[in-house]
Amino acid sequence: MKNLSEAVGSGADEDSHLVEKKLSSDEILTGNFLQICRDTVSLPDGRHTTREYVVHPGAVMIVALLDDGRVVLERQYRYPLHAVMIEFPAGKLDAGESSLACARRELQEETGYTAREWARAGVLHPAIAYSTEFIDIWFARGLTPGKQQLDSGEFLDVFSATPDELMNWCGSGRVTDAKTLTGMLWLTNMLSGAWTLEWQAARP
Amino acid sequence: MKNLSEAVGSGADEDSHLVEKKLSSDEILTGNFLQICRDTVSLPDGRHTTREYVVHPGAVMIVALLDDGRVVLERQYRYPLHAVMIEFPAGKLDAGESSLACARRELQEETGYTAREWARAGVLHPAIAYSTEFIDIWFARGLTPGKQQLDSGEFLDVFSATPDELMNWCGSGRVTDAKTLTGMLWLTNMLSGAWTLEWQAARP
Repeated sequence: MKNLSEAVGSGADEDSHLVEKKLSSDEILTGNFLQICRDTVSLPDGRHTTREYVVHPGAVMIVALLDDGRVVLERQYRYPLHAVMIEFPAGKLDAGESSLACARRELQEETGYTAREWARAGVLHPAIAYSTEFIDIWFARGLTPGKQQLDSGEFLDVFSATPDELMNWCGSGRVTDAKTLTGMLWLTNMLSGAWTLEWQAARP
Repeated sequence: MKNLSEAVGSGADEDSHLVEKKLSSDEILTGNFLQICRDTVSLPDGRHTTREYVVHPGAVMIVALLDDGRVVLERQYRYPLHAVMIEFPAGKLDAGESSLACARRELQEETGYTAREWARAGVLHPAIAYSTEFIDIWFARGLTPGKQQLDSGEFLDVFSATPDELMNWCGSGRVTDAKTLTGMLWLTNMLSGAWTLEWQAARP
């Protein structure tokens, strides 16, 4: 079977057999929370079809490292699944907000913590078939506790665990949230030294 | 800070300060592809709000291990992100279809491979804030190549990579699909022996 470079090829049009092109776009739902678009697209073979997707502003997730090596976690009821889920802190970007500003705000609002240093690890895309959402993955360290400031209608528990505890919950099925599982991939590679982070000091 | 058992407590109503209760439910969009519901719920403090979410039938992902240790991957254009993404093979459950039957069908349709043995590793939830979707994570081994049978309107490249190559792409940002990153967490823990799988023979 082909490897990646054989599959990708080398020409400028290397992906023309895969790419879909937008012909038109309509917002078909403007909800209280969800915005849904339906685009008409041309397929690689020239036929037309429609693609429907959630339009999302993007989000951040924070892997916050306590000085004793534990990480900050949340338990939150997630209505679509009718279950309390274990998650890394996360939240949506406000309009015009930078990713780091959002990460600092969400960590402080949801957990009370402020961090002395931050590092952007990468990005994940949770639902590539039907959402534009990206989640920037941030690490934080040098944490100082403070007062939680939850949004109206937001209810969550904050707790901490060791990376080993969290990894066990990932393997046992207690943690099933994809962003948190992805954060665990980053955390384990960061702790082993396989992947490195570029830390920056938080400015006031 | 609390650890998990302190955060959870021990009473029967241990999560009553988090749980939201359904009061009513309406389907607010019946699209060609997406179905969206809006529920009115009561919050833990008794106030009412709405929750909007994608109703999804569930899906499977397959980490297919070639005899030489490489894994089977796909490159597919994902319209909401306007990008070709590297992914493990995956697909949605048909009505009434079992998770394993779906995994066997999707692997064969998308890549041509059939597998001698299967193991269900776990489940992930890609977008817990706004989708009911779950993705069952399957491993497959003892692979035999065959003929791809893509759905009409489905276009993708199949290729293979070593686990080390794939891990490097996860760390460099070349792979950002959350299900594939989660599959990588499973693959690396399975290969190290930290997490074990229960293999079952595929029946005809």
